[in-house]
Amino acid sequence: MTVETHNLRVATRGNNHVVNVTAAIEQRLQSGSVRNGLVTAFVVGSTAGLTTTEFEPGLAEHDLEAAFEKLAPARGRYAHEATWHDDNGHSHVRASLLGPSLTVPLVDGRLTLGTWQQIVLLDFDTQPRERVLMVQVLGSA
Amino acid sequence: MTVETHNLRVATRGNNHVVNVTAAIEQRLQSGSVRNGLVTAFVVGSTAGLTTTEFEPGLAEHDLEAAFEKLAPARGRYAHEATWHDDNGHSHVRASLLGPSLTVPLVDGRLTLGTWQQIVLLDFDTQPRERVLMVQVLGSA
Amino acid sequence: MTVETHNLRVATRGNNHVVNVTAAIEQRLQSGSVRNGLVTAFVVGSTAGLTTTEFEPGLAEHDLEAAFEKLAPARGRYAHEATWHDDNGHSHVRASLLGPSLTVPLVDGRLTLGTWQQIVLLDFDTQPRERVLMVQVLGSA
Repeated sequence: MTVETHNLRVATRGNNHVVNVTAAIEQRLQSGSVRNGLVTAFVVGSTAGLTTTEFEPGLAEHDLEAAFEKLAPARGRYAHEATWHDDNGHSHVRASLLGPSLTVPLVDGRLTLGTWQQIVLLDFDTQPRERVLMVQVLGSA
Repeated sequence: MTVETHNLRVATRGNNHVVNVTAAIEQRLQSGSVRNGLVTAFVVGSTAGLTTTEFEPGLAEHDLEAAFEKLAPARGRYAHEATWHDDNGHSHVRASLLGPSLTVPLVDGRLTLGTWQQIVLLDFDTQPRERVLMVQVLGSA
Repeated sequence: MTVETHNLRVATRGNNHVVNVTAAIEQRLQSGSVRNGLVTAFVVGSTAGLTTTEFEPGLAEHDLEAAFEKLAPARGRYAHEATWHDDNGHSHVRASLLGPSLTVPLVDGRLTLGTWQQIVLLDFDTQPRERVLMVQVLGSA
């Protein structure tokens, strides 16, 4: 059994930017030796999250944001903002609801994603930034 | 350490059908040799998700759908649908929010679920179909 | 490769109580031998969930609950309640949407959390209770 740790940097525009990180993760997996096991992607920080989607402009640039806007409006009132005098209460709430972690089976060297299913990082914060995405691989060669 | 991969087929009615997949997963676990470790269930495709619930008709046939309907209404307008001329924008949004993956500890041959806690697959798409559920088991005998 | 199972008890007030369980989990990790691998926390039961957040009073005591109240109002009508004549339909719906499981990479003996990112248990049920939190650790020393 092997444990492999990969540390990716992902540049985002913030503001609900949906970034397709599938190819970056697959590239790291190919540089490692594990071919069967579990791959956990984890985004560091409390204003971003991970999930899967069909990565196309309609969902990535409009529909996902519309749902999060309903759940936690960007211009709503947040006790978090009163505490810290910042503007990202909605970013925190959205990130907690989506979750920072995604675990995908690795079978014969491939993630078991569907053809129209990509791993995406959603950055809910209000500024562009560079995110740290940890990719932890456990399994056998 | 052992890695075991199980591939389940789950027939669904679509349209927010909540399917209890606990027994099917447990049956596969009993056919394997791992007794302590992690079990990751992962539904292939971008219009379905996994979680746990008390599997009874009130929640499974009404309450969960009502919450998803609020979050992403079936008859809402989605940029995804304009792109592809299909009708499942809400299915994609719901699936991304719920997530395709669930990881449960396996201890002494048993999933650590509560008595009234079942693993369920939610198929948000608009047609009946057969879903592929990957079950990846890592651990020791 | 080693599998280590920890069983934590977490006292909660229920009613959307957000409990910071990070230190309790870290303490258990330090008592074990695994230094690189995966840590899965799993809350037993179908009316609680796990995620990460910046643990400060604004988010923990107000903002997260406000979002869940929008999604599944405490005083809404639930078929679950008609079935069982209880009052926690919203607790179940919230728990299913958040999910019972969180997996975090363990690297050189540390969870890869951000500085302002804590692991929290949300108890959505309507009574105080003691929750069982399973912490499953897989990896190498």
